Order: sequence, then C-alpha cells, then structure tokens
Amino acid sequence: MATCVATPNIAFVKYWGKRDERLHLPVAGSVSMTLDETLASRTTVDFGGFPEDSFVLDGRKGEFPDVIGEIRERAGIARLKARIVSRNNFPPAAGLASSASGFAALVVAATDAAGLRLSGRDLSVLARKGSGSACRSVVGGFAEWRAGKRRDGSDSYAEQIAPARHWRGLVDLAIVLDGARKKMPSRAGMRQTVATSDLYGARVAGMAAKISECRRAIIERDAPALFALVMRESNNMHAVMLDTWPPISYMNDESRKAVCVIHELVNNGREPVCGYTFDAGPNPHIITTRRRTGGIIKALKEGGVKVRRALVCGAGDGPRIVRG
Amino acid sequence: MATCVATPNIAFVKYWGKRDERLHLPVAGSVSMTLDETLASRTTVDFGGFPEDSFVLDGRKGEFPDVIGEIRERAGIARLKARIVSRNNFPPAAGLASSASGFAALVVAATDAAGLRLSGRDLSVLARKGSGSACRSVVGGFAEWRAGKRRDGSDSYAEQIAPARHWRGLVDLAIVLDGARKKMPSRAGMRQTVATSDLYGARVAGMAAKISECRRAIIERDAPALFALVMRESNNMHAVMLDTWPPISYMNDESRKAVCVIHELVNNGREPVCGYTFDAGPNPHIITTRRRTGGIIKALKEGGVKVRRALVCGAGDGPRIVRG
Repeated sequence: MATCVATPNIAFVKYWGKRDERLHLPVAGSVSMTLDETLASRTTVDFGGFPEDSFVLDGRKGEFPDVIGEIRERAGIARLKARIVSRNNFPPAAGLASSASGFAALVVAATDAAGLRLSGRDLSVLARKGSGSACRSVVGGFAEWRAGKRRDGSDSYAEQIAPARHWRGLVDLAIVLDGARKKMPSRAGMRQTVATSDLYGARVAGMAAKISECRRAIIERDAPALFALVMRESNNMHAVMLDTWPPISYMNDESRKAVCVIHELVNNGREPVCGYTFDAGPNPHIITTRRRTGGIIKALKEGGVKVRRALVCGAGDGPRIVRG
Repeated sequence: MATCVATPNIAFVKYWGKRDERLHLPVAGSVSMTLDETLASRTTVDFGGFPEDSFVLDGRKGEFPDVIGEIRERAGIARLKARIVSRNNFPPAAGLASSASGFAALVVAATDAAGLRLSGRDLSVLARKGSGSACRSVVGGFAEWRAGKRRDGSDSYAEQIAPARHWRGLVDLAIVLDGARKKMPSRAGMRQTVATSDLYGARVAGMAAKISECRRAIIERDAPALFALVMRESNNMHAVMLDTWPPISYMNDESRKAVCVIHELVNNGREPVCGYTFDAGPNPHIITTRRRTGGIIKALKEGGVKVRRALVCGAGDGPRIVRG
C-alpha cells in the first residue's frame, strides 16, 4: 500500500495532436511547469488481498485504470487485486483538468505499492499511457516531453529542464471565470485537428524552434521572452483548433476580455509583466511573477473580467510518497 | 455628371493580406458573389465647373478619394473639380461594410461622368485602388479576383466566373446580431497577419486549390460543396487572425452560437443546407438557397441567437448607371 500526492502542470508549449491514439504518443514535443500543491491529487493504491479491483475518485466509483495491469505484470503480482482511492482538492466546477495530477499520483503510488523501483523515465512512460500530459507532472519542475519516434513509445517521455527551485518567483495565476463550466474533453478534438486542419502542419513545423526558445527562456529566467512565447503559442494552438473541421472553440468572450486586459498591461508596461495561456477551456492561466499577481487581478477586475476565483500556483517538484 | 448604383459582395474565398499596401495588391486570389440591391451605394459624380473638390458621404463631408485624380488624368480633365455625393442604404449600425459598393459606384460614376469608356478589367483595377474588394463588386455576378504578379498591379483584377442569373436561388442571408457594432477596420490587421502569423504561409499555400474548387462548385451549382467550402474557408481565415500578433478576434459568443446552430442543421439534414461565413466582424453571412431562409432564421432564434435583423440578398450583376 502507498499514498502519493501529485500536481497538475501548466504547458508553456502545448500538446495538441497524437501520432498514436492508444499509447498517447504526441505529434510534437511540449514544455511545462509542474505546479505546487495548491492544486493536487492524492491517491492511495493498496494491493492487500481484495476480492476484486476497485477505483473510487472523489467518493464515486470510477473506471478501473488500465495502466495498473502493466504495473502488476512488471512487479510479478498479476493476480493481486487493487483498491484505489483518489481525491482531488481542485475547487469544484473550476474547469481545471485533474487528469495529469491524477495519473501521476496513480502511477507513483501503484509502482511504490507494488515494490517496483523505476527510473524517472520509466515512470514518465507509464504515466503517459494514462494521460499524455501526466508524463510531465511525474518528473516535476520545468519539464520537456520529447515526442519520440519509436512506435512502442519507449522514447516518448518527459525530462526535467530545471527543478522548481530554479525559478521560485514564477507562478501560474489560474483565473476561474464566472460561469465557466467543466473542462471539455480534448481527446476527440485532437484527433479531428490532426485529420482535418490545413494549418496543423505549419504549427508542427514550428514546434522544435519554439521548444528550444522556451528551454532557453527557462534556463536563463528570461521572463519577458517566456511571457511573449506562451501567449503566441496559446493563440497558435487555438488557431488550429478553429481551423479544425468541425471547428473547436474553447475561449469565450470573457476569455477574450482577459486577453485584451493582458495586452494592455503588456503594452503599457516598460516590459512584459505577464503572459496568458489557455488550455482546452475558457479559463486564463496567467504566467507571471509572484509579486505582480495582485496588480494583475486588480486590472482584470477593473477591465470587467468576471473573476470567480484566482489561484496563485508556484512551481512544484512533482509527486511525493506520503507515509502514514 | 453621372450617377451609379453599386452593391457589396460576399466573399466565398476571402481576401486577407496584401503584397502591396498602397496599390491594394493581395497575397492571394479570392472569390465572391456580388449582391443584389437589397444593400447598395448610390454615388453621383459631377465635373460641372466647381471651384473645389468635395465629397459628401451619407450627408457628411468625407475625405476626397485619391482615385478620382487618376480618372481625371486619363480623361484629360485634370483641372476640372468634382462634386461627389454618395449614399448607402445599409441599415444603420448593421456592421456591414460599404467600402466595396462605395468604391465600385464611385469608379463607375466617375469614369462615366469623365467620358471614359473603360473595359471591365480597367474598371476593376481602378476600383481595387480605392478598396481591394471593390474590384470584385465592379464586375458583378460570381467573380474571381486574380492576385496577379506584376508590381504595378495591372494584372490584379476581378473577372466574372458566371453572371447573377447562373444561380438565381443562391442567397446570402445576412444576419445582424443584437449589439454588434460597426465593422472594425481591417487594414492594419491584414498587415499584422502577413508580418507575424506563423500559420499564414500555410493558408496562402492552400488558396489556389480552394479557389479552383470554389469555381467548380459555382459553375456546377454544387450547393453542398460550396456550403462546406465557405465554412472551412471562413474558419481558416479567422484562425490566422487569431495566430496574428497581437491576436485579432472578430467573432464573439453570439457568432459562435450561430455557428453551433448551423452545424446542427448541417449534420441533422440529409444534405448540407447552408454554410456560414464571417468577414471582419461578428455578423454571420449564411450562404443558402432562398427557400431555406425562413427555416434557418427560425432555427437561429430557437437556438438562442439574438437576431436583430435578417437580410436576404441574392446575386446581382454589379454597378449600373442611373439616368435622370
């Protein structure tokens, strides 16, 4: 039995499109910051002699995760049934994705409970099989997910660019907009983009340069470059979503109001003070430094953006096993 | 002295991006349907011995159009001053562009008043110098604007694919949304897209095939193909707008609500019954056949779209000189 706490990550360079649906192998690489425990999934896996497998997520029975089968096989405990209990401390209806933190916590708890001692790379590959972006949460800190080329996905995993302490002041100011519903499923949308968008090839062609610039900005703590990059990258991803047939739209008028406020802040300041990024939902994630969060929230509210909740998340080092 | 009535056009394959700012030379070609006189500009040009040039648009003094200078020179009346009075019958605050119909009416009235007898091609080049898309309104019916290659723009003009009578049932159902403001200026936006969008090259690379498919659909009156094409083409243009830095957004939540209603209609019907297209503004133009307009307006309203006004515009044959 083992319990693990893991956290989500915010992508600076985004994952959108798979080259293998079943193994969650991406068309291109991506870069993210794993967040601190402001938002977290806590998962307990117990192989202690149960009559059948069970999985309970936030108090409700859920579909038992496939990845446990592979972990049991590798540990030579294929016949042991598992009881899995997972809980997210995410604010209800916040529209924030918990699949990355959930699968990161699951894989780390399950391998620990099964007595497997895996490398970070192996853990990242396992987490990826649960949910693509979970492979970044597993390694923690600032991470790059390398797309890989092999058909079995053994070279598609995340590696740390730098640990969380490398850039302590950097935060994701996660804004929950009023009326924003649950995050929409992105799996079908990704498939449609790859199959139908005329612009997707141009996006993919630009990814290597973007990832290398993002790595540089992180390593050199070049905040203005990072802020500009995340905004352009987010817009680029939402552009190919719109070019998808049928079109995909996650941003709404409130999202665009926030974008306008941030552009005014960025243009009126002597230097870019922040950058927005949007995942598969309408809520803005504003990448900035901790001391600027108050001013940005104020500017959003003055700009008429309906801010229901604002969470300040720093960088975190990824999953940790909790004893007792 | 001459008076001309001209009409706007709705682009099926859109014009977005110039290779020459001053001469309004486009990066790629485009295809449109010139509309009937449901919406029209009426312009009178008089070279009858005035002490100075004057230009009045909808009762207000406006900036005297440059293109008149070239017309006077070609007619050998460089010293005659002109009085120009222009009026649009467009519903106020409808957010519909009158620059195409305005410059088409201006150029046809002015050349007639100056005694110039120009070819359709020469008229189209002149109108283009006033406002790019006016070159399509001048030739009327279904028209293709060829981008051209020459630096002086002499090969950048529109030609008719078919006259209006070729497809009498086809209409542009122009929906004016509640609260939609005036069309925003598109000139600066176009420049930014060409300069900054990473996806723009991929859009341009696909234009020739799109134009040729659009020509085919028009010539064969292949409505389902045309409807699908206009939707994908509109989304593609708005995608590169979003990928522009800073990003450009013309569609709002009401626009997207209309898009959703249309997608439901299209998927639930036995065949695509219509297609949406958006210019540089939030108002949908729904390309369909005349007998379907009532059902579509009903579906939009039932879908919660705030329809302030719905105009049914058929195809028109372009500018006509009005005597008396």
